[in-house]
Amino acid sequence: MMGGDRGLNVTASGVALALSRHPDLSCTLVGDESQIRTAMKAVIDSDRVDIVHSSESVDMHESPASALRFKKDSSMRVALDLLGSGQVDACVSAGNTGALVAAARFVLKTLSKIDRPAIISTLPRTHGHVHMLDLGANIDSPAEILMQFALMGESMVRTLEGIDRPSVGLLNVGSEEIKGSEVIKRANELLKASGLNYVGYVEGDDIFNGSVELVVTDGFVGNVALKTSEGLAQMLTRVIREEFDRGFLTRIAALIAAPVLRSFKNRFDHRAYNGAVLLGLNGTVVKSHGNVDGLAFSHAIDTARLAAQKDLIGHIRHDLEASSISSDKVAPL
Amino acid sequence: MMGGDRGLNVTASGVALALSRHPDLSCTLVGDESQIRTAMKAVIDSDRVDIVHSSESVDMHESPASALRFKKDSSMRVALDLLGSGQVDACVSAGNTGALVAAARFVLKTLSKIDRPAIISTLPRTHGHVHMLDLGANIDSPAEILMQFALMGESMVRTLEGIDRPSVGLLNVGSEEIKGSEVIKRANELLKASGLNYVGYVEGDDIFNGSVELVVTDGFVGNVALKTSEGLAQMLTRVIREEFDRGFLTRIAALIAAPVLRSFKNRFDHRAYNGAVLLGLNGTVVKSHGNVDGLAFSHAIDTARLAAQKDLIGHIRHDLEASSISSDKVAPL
Repeated sequence: MMGGDRGLNVTASGVALALSRHPDLSCTLVGDESQIRTAMKAVIDSDRVDIVHSSESVDMHESPASALRFKKDSSMRVALDLLGSGQVDACVSAGNTGALVAAARFVLKTLSKIDRPAIISTLPRTHGHVHMLDLGANIDSPAEILMQFALMGESMVRTLEGIDRPSVGLLNVGSEEIKGSEVIKRANELLKASGLNYVGYVEGDDIFNGSVELVVTDGFVGNVALKTSEGLAQMLTRVIREEFDRGFLTRIAALIAAPVLRSFKNRFDHRAYNGAVLLGLNGTVVKSHGNVDGLAFSHAIDTARLAAQKDLIGHIRHDLEASSISSDKVAPL
Repeated sequence: MMGGDRGLNVTASGVALALSRHPDLSCTLVGDESQIRTAMKAVIDSDRVDIVHSSESVDMHESPASALRFKKDSSMRVALDLLGSGQVDACVSAGNTGALVAAARFVLKTLSKIDRPAIISTLPRTHGHVHMLDLGANIDSPAEILMQFALMGESMVRTLEGIDRPSVGLLNVGSEEIKGSEVIKRANELLKASGLNYVGYVEGDDIFNGSVELVVTDGFVGNVALKTSEGLAQMLTRVIREEFDRGFLTRIAALIAAPVLRSFKNRFDHRAYNGAVLLGLNGTVVKSHGNVDGLAFSHAIDTARLAAQKDLIGHIRHDLEASSISSDKVAPL
């Protein structure tokens, strides 16, 4: 467990929430020991909390290469080392994403047949949610890598959600076979031959309409789609608040509509969707948003716990071994 | 003017609305003359409406190449020919986007220094709106093409919106200089040297937060961002309706909140954003969504009229001549 933009208080309340929710959970907190002791008075008395001291931390704007090279005693690196050596079952970080991906890859190594890790997370739908990857671990991805993402993502949805044959879609700019780049067309062929429950191309609006359980795309497009959604949701929230705050009558309306608006808000509470999994490594690494509260952070811990409990890595490893894909087609990044 | 998925009734009511709004406007309707006469009884008596007969139409799922080759008397092609020969000042279509781009490029040719046309449209912001291109005329675009998009888009925002030096952002997965693909990094360098009011990288959430007036991206990413936004907005609308429809008390709340919700809805009425411009050609071509009503279609006509009235093409041509970009670096598609 490491802090993010908002620091140790958020981590502390997230850990406290997760511990109270799961009697089987124990947490190892990595960072400056005295700071942790001060911030976490409420939880460190628990016999389910350990502290491991580290002397450094990775800055949010530090380059992944520099963090990897010069911050060997950073909380991020020490936590990943604990995971690599089997002293913990999963690792949660709210730190610098690029540095986390680079360090996790260095410490844990990618799974056999996997060239690059991908970031997978859930987005809300009218009912339930949808999984999407890659959300930004990579910039661009050849067809073979997209195929690897699909296999790992499908394995995760099946394992963690208990869905038997989750449907998989490939994000494109049209649903017709003739559309898309050469990379997308080739990935489409690989997916059709994969044995997955592949439904074909999906478009941006299909992310939210329940067409598929898993959306596969490259990290650039996935990241833009995710952040565009976040930005639009924030704007709509701001404007609906503005409209209800316009005058006396609208404020009365706001009071009367408050339970409905609250129930609407709860259905899409972004905190429930916090906790993206870094997929494709020999170990469970969960990335929390940096700028969130304790409740959101506790959901990232929940995801890490669930993945460890259900042996996510073991399932993915098994599914990769059973599949016919090979990682030889592309050189490692 | 040509119909879309919803056919001639939509076109008819859109034309009627636009004619009533603009006394200086006249429309030439292209398509099957007898069908037009039947559907458009309300408007064809106007001395500001002409009909030009065409015997064919391009199917929504027809390939652009096939439409270009075999549908020489399609309404789309005939309308573009009228524009090419100067008999009309702008062309509006709700037809097959790919076929429209291909035919427009063939008939009108790209402007000097421009290799490929791009689709530009507006998206809502908290206050006002933002322009974004390319929304899907191309699949991927090298840095030089992104630079061409930026120049044309900036010229359009300046000309049609009267903004002196509109700010321009390049869509990326992070705002730091080290992030992004090689294409994005090179486009960043070109934009920095361009003399435009270039603010640097923007992320998906910046589309809606007022950071920039113009967002530049390739057609794949732009199309996904646009459709993701549309899909999310539709889902949120559906869910808020569901929540207000849950029971007796929530229905009362809906009645009381109705004026506020209506005002909110009007601010983001997607119909006001209908009408994307196909930029980079020797002529103004406006693409309407296929599946819209007459009000939305009338906004696409408004955009075409405004572009013609403000001599958009003349301004872009002038700005391109004054710029130091050249189209020699990439082979035409």
